[in-house]
Amino acid sequence: MATTQSQPGTVWLVGAGPGDPELLTLKAVRLLEGADVILHDSLIPDEILELASKKARCIHTGKRCGAHRMPQARINALMHRYAERGLAVVRLKGGDPFVFGRGGEELEYLRARTIPVEVVPGITAAAGCAAEAQIPLTHRAYGNALILHSGHSSNGGFQPARDYTRVFYMGLNQAGDIRRQLLDDGVDDNTPVAVILAGTTSGQKVFTGILVELETLARQRKDNSPGLIVVGDSAAIARQNQTTEPLSSIHIA
Amino acid sequence: MATTQSQPGTVWLVGAGPGDPELLTLKAVRLLEGADVILHDSLIPDEILELASKKARCIHTGKRCGAHRMPQARINALMHRYAERGLAVVRLKGGDPFVFGRGGEELEYLRARTIPVEVVPGITAAAGCAAEAQIPLTHRAYGNALILHSGHSSNGGFQPARDYTRVFYMGLNQAGDIRRQLLDDGVDDNTPVAVILAGTTSGQKVFTGILVELETLARQRKDNSPGLIVVGDSAAIARQNQTTEPLSSIHIA
Repeated sequence: MATTQSQPGTVWLVGAGPGDPELLTLKAVRLLEGADVILHDSLIPDEILELASKKARCIHTGKRCGAHRMPQARINALMHRYAERGLAVVRLKGGDPFVFGRGGEELEYLRARTIPVEVVPGITAAAGCAAEAQIPLTHRAYGNALILHSGHSSNGGFQPARDYTRVFYMGLNQAGDIRRQLLDDGVDDNTPVAVILAGTTSGQKVFTGILVELETLARQRKDNSPGLIVVGDSAAIARQNQTTEPLSSIHIA
Repeated sequence: MATTQSQPGTVWLVGAGPGDPELLTLKAVRLLEGADVILHDSLIPDEILELASKKARCIHTGKRCGAHRMPQARINALMHRYAERGLAVVRLKGGDPFVFGRGGEELEYLRARTIPVEVVPGITAAAGCAAEAQIPLTHRAYGNALILHSGHSSNGGFQPARDYTRVFYMGLNQAGDIRRQLLDDGVDDNTPVAVILAGTTSGQKVFTGILVELETLARQRKDNSPGLIVVGDSAAIARQNQTTEPLSSIHIA
């Protein structure tokens, strides 16, 4: 959020967007300007890297198409090492860190080592390309839902989706219907869920539980602020401070 | 792209992101600073509107929860009227204009009246909330695909997804496998597709066709630049200048 400082000893997983430097967020620019170390993927244009502080050490972690890509374990170890030295580390990733970016794996690695970690979203390629090409990703007439797939798996080939993360926009008043539809689709009532109110604002609240509790969680909304429902295993690893109790609430201020 | 100017007589459909003003893109800020007229949705924080030029006329098109929301036809007519007067119009929408934002409908309305229109992506709520709550939207272990649903339809209730737009990241070398999987899933070989190369950069190329042509389209890639595949009816309305021939190419510079 706007008040968060670029704190030494923290790793920031930052989305650089789809390519056009003007599609960086203000927050990404601020963090690049304040970073001591930047570990960046391939496909980050030079114009973006030039925004970094002159004092920052820039480390290129990958080359195109897998050739000579730095192993993930090495990237993890570098983030860890620099953060432990008290440096402000930006891990700069194309697109959004949590959409096919291995951001989740890096998050878990750092958390397990109690390194403070924050995530800054970026414009994912689907949104960036669709805007330029003028292809509406959702449209009431042409497609009222959007699926993002990876076109290749870790072995290089195409692998059909196994598990989905499902996000429902503006669905808090319809939580019962959404749950019934998910059950009809074969989703288990024990699937982790999160309800996020007023996301990314100073009033953000996150409630976590499992699908059977979705209606109860949705009733936590006290006003008409917007809310988002996330259904899928990754909802269980939502930001710490949550307890295992249902209706756990974390207030991120 | 970075060189695009805020041209009078153009309507810019601009994503304002999920709420945190720091999650605006640099491009959105530039367009707000140069706008003559801003038509903005509810839920756009004051801190974002304060970035607008002092000369800009700000029009609030909606109130929360549908009460007294300006009818879509009225919003369309205002965009049209101001653009025809040669003004720079920003239509500012929460999140991303093409993800549950009716941006597609506004795009079609303006195109039909030959009003120049450009689209600027924004951080969609799913990405913004997931980053703050630290929920990876995709993860190799927990969910290798992401579905975004609307939680309510135009009648206010929940409506299960009918048609999906499907986007495949980094799938150009697996286009054959992707097509076969889609056919197995019941997607028709006549479904519109688009292949976007080097999206949002000055080298962006968009090729459109139908699913049966996907492998041919994917072979248009001459190097290892990243590519995105979009499958769904909305791919057929990709930015004009495309012809109905397969392998049509538009170069957006």
